[in-house]
Amino acid sequence: MRTLCHDLSASTPGAEVTLEGWVHRRRELARITFLVLRDRSGLAQVVLPAGADVPPEETTVRVSGTATANAQAPGGVELTDAVVELLTEPAATPPAELWRPRLDVSLPTLLDHAPVLWRHPAQRARWQLAAASLRGFRSTLDEMGFTEVATPKLVETATESGANVFTVDYFGRPAYLAQSPQFHKQQLVGVFERVYEVGPVFRAEPHDTVRHLAEYRSLDVELGFIEDHRDVLAVLRDVLAGMVAAVASRPEAVERTGARLPVVPEQIPVIHFADALALVGAPADEPDLAPEHERALGEWALAEHGSDFLAVEGYPMAKRPFYTHPQPGDARWSNSFDLLFRGLELVTGGQRLHRAPDYDAAIRARGEDPAAYDSYLQAFRHGMPPHGGFAIGLERWVARLVEAANVREVTLFPRDLHRLAP
Amino acid sequence: MRTLCHDLSASTPGAEVTLEGWVHRRRELARITFLVLRDRSGLAQVVLPAGADVPPEETTVRVSGTATANAQAPGGVELTDAVVELLTEPAATPPAELWRPRLDVSLPTLLDHAPVLWRHPAQRARWQLAAASLRGFRSTLDEMGFTEVATPKLVETATESGANVFTVDYFGRPAYLAQSPQFHKQQLVGVFERVYEVGPVFRAEPHDTVRHLAEYRSLDVELGFIEDHRDVLAVLRDVLAGMVAAVASRPEAVERTGARLPVVPEQIPVIHFADALALVGAPADEPDLAPEHERALGEWALAEHGSDFLAVEGYPMAKRPFYTHPQPGDARWSNSFDLLFRGLELVTGGQRLHRAPDYDAAIRARGEDPAAYDSYLQAFRHGMPPHGGFAIGLERWVARLVEAANVREVTLFPRDLHRLAP
Repeated sequence: MRTLCHDLSASTPGAEVTLEGWVHRRRELARITFLVLRDRSGLAQVVLPAGADVPPEETTVRVSGTATANAQAPGGVELTDAVVELLTEPAATPPAELWRPRLDVSLPTLLDHAPVLWRHPAQRARWQLAAASLRGFRSTLDEMGFTEVATPKLVETATESGANVFTVDYFGRPAYLAQSPQFHKQQLVGVFERVYEVGPVFRAEPHDTVRHLAEYRSLDVELGFIEDHRDVLAVLRDVLAGMVAAVASRPEAVERTGARLPVVPEQIPVIHFADALALVGAPADEPDLAPEHERALGEWALAEHGSDFLAVEGYPMAKRPFYTHPQPGDARWSNSFDLLFRGLELVTGGQRLHRAPDYDAAIRARGEDPAAYDSYLQAFRHGMPPHGGFAIGLERWVARLVEAANVREVTLFPRDLHRLAP
Repeated sequence: MRTLCHDLSASTPGAEVTLEGWVHRRRELARITFLVLRDRSGLAQVVLPAGADVPPEETTVRVSGTATANAQAPGGVELTDAVVELLTEPAATPPAELWRPRLDVSLPTLLDHAPVLWRHPAQRARWQLAAASLRGFRSTLDEMGFTEVATPKLVETATESGANVFTVDYFGRPAYLAQSPQFHKQQLVGVFERVYEVGPVFRAEPHDTVRHLAEYRSLDVELGFIEDHRDVLAVLRDVLAGMVAAVASRPEAVERTGARLPVVPEQIPVIHFADALALVGAPADEPDLAPEHERALGEWALAEHGSDFLAVEGYPMAKRPFYTHPQPGDARWSNSFDLLFRGLELVTGGQRLHRAPDYDAAIRARGEDPAAYDSYLQAFRHGMPPHGGFAIGLERWVARLVEAANVREVTLFPRDLHRLAP
């Protein structure tokens, strides 16, 4: 019967215990040899005689011995009189010393050796924050009557434009990798009213930046019977609070990563795009916020509202996709928003058009033919409610939590212009 | 303040109530008009005067009125003195009458009009079983110390063979769509020991069958520090029990679909492949089970063990992928299994190789060069535990539960040789 490292501290002193895991570190002292074992739960210390034959770091082993109290050992209990059994051949030397407190390697080394370097406890904890976030995302939405859906990643037409789309050879004809589940999640509002999906999205980003990936995890939400985009923002607020609570329930991972958890305010402060431009001193006809504007707005939100989050609503219609709902009374602006988290864009959301004639007009206004969108538009011809939604990028979220300089540092196996392996 | 149809029965008689949803059905009688409203929670009856102007079926509306007890109405309460407000233009006539108890359409009609026909309550309930299954899958594994992971769908090499793989134009060079997360989930056993993923997998299936899709949802599990494939089967047993329990917690969806829920036995019965061949009277050198053999085995499991499930272990190594662990003592057979559910293959699983030299030998034995698998094999050179796992096809699972003749009937937007829309 195997005991996890984490549970060793609860073992009765003197009990015979078997641990299994990786040799995290060996330390030969003059009169004693330490083997630190790592498993999914944590670390444990094993005491062996001086000169004992300890396999190299990362070898998988089974260790049987006696649980013995020692205030110096992790958890206050170590294994003595231990027998070490190898589960494979001795492991090759890892590309970095995984037992050191920090993984001090260059980004290319980290990514080339991801299968091994993700084993470092501080690196592994980063993904544990991602996994906890997913749990919090889903449980919050399940409570609110949302249905999880699965939409196709192979699609006939590019979602929003022909740019940045990957082409697939689909039984001899072209297909595309979905850039977002936008069209399908809207159609499914017609079925379930409230839907969410966690899945990969694909962007053929031709630029090398610290924030973009060719494939990332999108946390997508869409809901019907709303008044306007403010109802969408209220759901986003609760989702973020649920994600933060789930992350906080993994205190050991939070500590390992040094993540700084935000407080999600009861109401996320909102500023209109036009006011945001004025606030940062940008010309009133700017169509978008520059990164330095987003940073300044983040600082303002923290100083003025004590909030790590700020929603900028009303983005110019000209810069939003065709399905965006205009702001009633002033169609220069839209009922959409970006959510800034610590001065960086984390979420895009808003209200969508819901009337079939509005879709026809919006598509024609972009010089396209509604017939090309026929399978999407059938949902609207057969009755759709006012609706909206948002999408959170999982990797960006975790990168902000742990203040990673590059989104690749928190992505298990990133894909970009240059990287297709491991 | 909106009330859901399902909650109308709890309204105080005489209370003013507002419902929102779709016009599910209108019925004009001589002295009265009925409007049946549908929302995500169910149906409600609205009473209007004879000759009232009721919008056509599927139009979205807001209805305000007085909650009034009526034993004939769904839930025992209906809305009287009602005012109906349209939320869009009147809806176009749907491709089938969604208010009829059964959706009596051909498969092509069902698939061409999926965005509208999924609204039918009995059809919608099928996907609700899928969503519940996902919840049960994840919660069971979360309890058992598994970590959810996200592996790339864009990969450099085909997972198991060059056959049935989709090619992507990846910034001017070829990439492939992952046929399974197999390689990456194994690597991540090295990090988290126990991992799962729910995600799309892609198979360029050149054949039109009732069981195959070009894109489907795979529920993948992999765990380390096992004795052999029987430990994997034990986890699979608990996962299936968790999925059935989650489905059972949606009794209204179970009833709507007529799903027949299996009892998951404490131990799933196991038969060796060689014994299975003998049992069905097949030649002892058959390399695989034919569909009629699987059916016969399913009947045998039910008659002999009272079980809807049967694990067939020991499949010939020659028919299994290179990473399969052979059966100790007789390398003709493997430590792998297929799980039959009611006589159809639902799950494939087993123990994998875990020693680096075994991988080199297995890959060379297939006439390939281990160097081509370098990024995958680095995990094994740096220490991996004995491990194994399995994959469940979500759509096949739901199809078996509701006894759908074709897996496409339970897939939101199926993709196959001929179909890339809606």
